[in-house]
Amino acid sequence: MSIITSKLSKIENISQKKLSEGINKGSIVVLKNKNRKIKPLAIGKGLSVKINTNIGTSTDSYDPKYELKKLNAALEAKADTIMDLSVGGDIRKTRKVILANSPIPVGTVPIYEAAIKAKKKFGDFSEMTPELILETIEEQAKDGIDFFTIHAGIDKNTVKRLQSKKRYGGVVSRGGAILVRWIIENQKENPLITYFPQILDIAKKYNIALSLGDGMRPGALSDSLDYFQIKELINLGKLVKLAKKKGVQVIIEGPGHVPINQIELNVKLQKELCYDTPFYILGPLVLDSALGFDHITSAIGSSIAAMHGADFICVVTPKEHLGQPNPQDIKQGTIAAKIAAHAVNILKNKTLRQQENLLSKARRKRDWDNHIARSLFPREAKKLTKGLKLSDVCTMCGNYCSLKIIDSCDLS
Amino acid sequence: MSIITSKLSKIENISQKKLSEGINKGSIVVLKNKNRKIKPLAIGKGLSVKINTNIGTSTDSYDPKYELKKLNAALEAKADTIMDLSVGGDIRKTRKVILANSPIPVGTVPIYEAAIKAKKKFGDFSEMTPELILETIEEQAKDGIDFFTIHAGIDKNTVKRLQSKKRYGGVVSRGGAILVRWIIENQKENPLITYFPQILDIAKKYNIALSLGDGMRPGALSDSLDYFQIKELINLGKLVKLAKKKGVQVIIEGPGHVPINQIELNVKLQKELCYDTPFYILGPLVLDSALGFDHITSAIGSSIAAMHGADFICVVTPKEHLGQPNPQDIKQGTIAAKIAAHAVNILKNKTLRQQENLLSKARRKRDWDNHIARSLFPREAKKLTKGLKLSDVCTMCGNYCSLKIIDSCDLS
Repeated sequence: MSIITSKLSKIENISQKKLSEGINKGSIVVLKNKNRKIKPLAIGKGLSVKINTNIGTSTDSYDPKYELKKLNAALEAKADTIMDLSVGGDIRKTRKVILANSPIPVGTVPIYEAAIKAKKKFGDFSEMTPELILETIEEQAKDGIDFFTIHAGIDKNTVKRLQSKKRYGGVVSRGGAILVRWIIENQKENPLITYFPQILDIAKKYNIALSLGDGMRPGALSDSLDYFQIKELINLGKLVKLAKKKGVQVIIEGPGHVPINQIELNVKLQKELCYDTPFYILGPLVLDSALGFDHITSAIGSSIAAMHGADFICVVTPKEHLGQPNPQDIKQGTIAAKIAAHAVNILKNKTLRQQENLLSKARRKRDWDNHIARSLFPREAKKLTKGLKLSDVCTMCGNYCSLKIIDSCDLS
Repeated sequence: MSIITSKLSKIENISQKKLSEGINKGSIVVLKNKNRKIKPLAIGKGLSVKINTNIGTSTDSYDPKYELKKLNAALEAKADTIMDLSVGGDIRKTRKVILANSPIPVGTVPIYEAAIKAKKKFGDFSEMTPELILETIEEQAKDGIDFFTIHAGIDKNTVKRLQSKKRYGGVVSRGGAILVRWIIENQKENPLITYFPQILDIAKKYNIALSLGDGMRPGALSDSLDYFQIKELINLGKLVKLAKKKGVQVIIEGPGHVPINQIELNVKLQKELCYDTPFYILGPLVLDSALGFDHITSAIGSSIAAMHGADFICVVTPKEHLGQPNPQDIKQGTIAAKIAAHAVNILKNKTLRQQENLLSKARRKRDWDNHIARSLFPREAKKLTKGLKLSDVCTMCGNYCSLKIIDSCDLS
């Protein structure tokens, strides 16, 4: 571990001592399956905020090659991790293709594959047995998955409450919905709770981080901080303790739709109820209604969350709520999330902040090539200048360029 | 005024008494030139956050018809006001075309036209005389402009300090740069300060709101809250008092580039130093380096500013720092700013919040037509669904749609 922490401490610009302390306390996780040959990635307190991009097949579209295009779009836009959320076609083949081509950590939600196997085998995903679930988890672990989303926060009590209290948005987590239905059909406790110790064993064996999923995340602004969300967060906090006892790394998943003035509170609650465990946050989306622009509602929410301590941001694409994202959507979503993270990372990392200063100086000097080269996404910036006349001023102000006017002044 | 306040109080969902109090105190302004036939627009404390879109010709591109395309793009994306920042071609003709076609308030920066006139007449814009400036202001007032940006915060002291202290981003305000150069060349105080009483008289005569400009706004994160910005804000606070004494409505302009963790402080300072005058904020942009995506850095910054009390947001397009925006850029920038404002407006206005709830319910019921129809930009959302198979589920999860799974559960 010491070579790894030495490298990571340089990347993250913090002392090796602080990094090791964070890992020991569980406020920092390091993603890398034992079987994978990638650079480990550290996420958590005091580190730069990371972003994850979801890709994966759907029941309508399931070409592994197309998933590679999405992977490359995410990499181009500087994703830190990838999640393969495939539910269509040959799930394992797709996973292996993604793992073989991803230089960054890959996560999955193993319950998806287990549900699909059960449907094939028994005709309905609610027939999914604990054995099938554990087998699937172990197989994915062997394949090299670096982190698993495990929806072990939903319990029988949740289902009971769902019978008496409606939510505006309902249950919008795919894993959450699968488990709610499983609990109802089988009249048993959530198997991910019952077999949590066995799941911990597998995670320990392969050095996989468990990302404790939020099956009851709010899918509408008016569901934010409701009974379901908070009760699940409390449940997840208890699981954190179990995981730590076994030396398994954990992350907590959160939000969805949250009014802008409740984001800070969301982060504070998670940190309090889950013992400073890294917070992996979807969005939050600050509006229900911005269809087609949820990469923007999400960039707003996630930058605020990151400012208040969220550690890991899940990308939302412009296609969210409308359909399966294509590579272009993936790119736009990932860029927006990266911007949100970077706005906070420049406050944490002096080297990044210096880059901002150097770019600003290049701009002041109207050194346009250097200006674009130092930008976050130079290729995208360059595209926008196509066809525009560039001289010692840009086309925006022409000869009324403030920078040129000031340059012409005698300020000595 | 009572018919106007009655209408406005309904639009803004606050009592007529509160609205009138705000107007009297100066924490609310109502935009509408006496000579214009548009609906008045209220901006300020307790009201929904408004957004302004900048359009206008440059020295490279100056077709009034093209400006109408930009105007229409801004209107389609729900801009609340327009600023005509033209510096190329026939300035007055462009202004008249925009005024004739804009159903919403129009603002200008009269110093631009004055500078251009001076350049034509005397060969250099620094030859601009106070008479020429006042004439230009009066002419624009007669034409019907509803609010003027007046850069009266820069003074001789500012110029002196600029000689000893460099900024990372320099002076990035066009009006600011023009006045800095004027002060140096003429060795006199800023004419907008010297003749501020006369400017107030014109504003009073036509019921024009003065938007006191921030010539020293930070153009780089590392210039945020520096001497220049704060000293100018203090200067503007003094001018607010003069304006109020004469019964002239005022707005204060602010930010530019601001680190995300300084936005709240920026708003608090403005409210404190400028006696609760409405705050008109550019961005703030939370990064220097996101070239091509400054509608996103700006949406992040302006939503946070609005949450903390900023009243009026100035749109930043994806083309900012790169070149003159085209109508498509204007639309994307305006949409992003509208989303930022709306994320705060739903907290202030119950009717707007209810719309979010109704959309969420439509989503839960997988009533996709209603879902899109209730969204903020239905036409844009519809475009994104083109070619996607829509059934009782969308293509994202297909049969693993969480909403459909929950619907299939017996939750009675």
